Amino acid sequence: MQVSPIGIVHSTFCEPEGTPIQAAAAIGSKAIIEVYDEYMEGLKDIDGFSHLILLYHFHQIKKAKLTVKPFLDDHTHGIFATRSPARPNPIGFSVVRLKMVDENLLYVEDVDILDQTPVLDIKPYIGEFDHRITEKIGWFQKSIHKMHEVKDDGRFKG
Amino acid sequence: MQVSPIGIVHSTFCEPEGTPIQAAAAIGSKAIIEVYDEYMEGLKDIDGFSHLILLYHFHQIKKAKLTVKPFLDDHTHGIFATRSPARPNPIGFSVVRLKMVDENLLYVEDVDILDQTPVLDIKPYIGEFDHRITEKIGWFQKSIHKMHEVKDDGRFKG
Repeated sequence: MQVSPIGIVHSTFCEPEGTPIQAAAAIGSKAIIEVYDEYMEGLKDIDGFSHLILLYHFHQIKKAKLTVKPFLDDHTHGIFATRSPARPNPIGFSVVRLKMVDENLLYVEDVDILDQTPVLDIKPYIGEFDHRITEKIGWFQKSIHKMHEVKDDGRFKG
Repeated sequence: MQVSPIGIVHSTFCEPEGTPIQAAAAIGSKAIIEVYDEYMEGLKDIDGFSHLILLYHFHQIKKAKLTVKPFLDDHTHGIFATRSPARPNPIGFSVVRLKMVDENLLYVEDVDILDQTPVLDIKPYIGEFDHRITEKIGWFQKSIHKMHEVKDDGRFKG
């Protein structure tokens, strides 16, 4: 399956190093999603939503790994049990806050995404569809409190 | 960007018609995610999670539309303001409940995904990362209560 960018992220994070590791740990970080002109019609009524799901290409990842040592732990886990970017299909997922729409530009906040990241899809985030109450969050349980302090250290780059 | 399936969904929904339109409206629907042998190592520690994010290929979609009339409304909206499958990059997103792991098979519930759907990625769902409280859910506001009654009617097939 071939996928093509429908837009691009303009953010203040130019390098993996120092970038927040989750949107939930990037409260207030501003960015602009530029949707390419040929897809602009697809934005009709998007201004009614407070939060959007972004799917995007982890474009700085050159090589997938099946087991990784993630930012939040000192142990190795299977890639599908982590949110690390070095995935077989390097597709990122973030929920961001939509502040304003100006033609093909979406002004968003709470963004943990690198500048120049290709955007693959935008969906409205709907709590009634997407929220779950989890009983188990695996190895994250003991480290989740660190998500605001820990930043990307570049380990998955290239 | 080229993406390749890392596995396949085995579910009881063989046709779009009659399939629940959201995982949240498919409570109890069982399915098996078969992860291909070469990616099995990536599942290490996944059994610690109660919920998983699945990204998958809407493989029955042949043609993207920029505006659609979604299942839950009689009005036309931009594709990026809907969760309709006929998207420029037909990538689906669902949160499912993980019940059991047996080698390369994930037994899951609350599944709104068609049988034989190619799986692109599996990520742990973490409420602390992924849950947002929305102020606005746009045009869904007036129809969200219908999500349990409304089923796919095949309108986006082919």
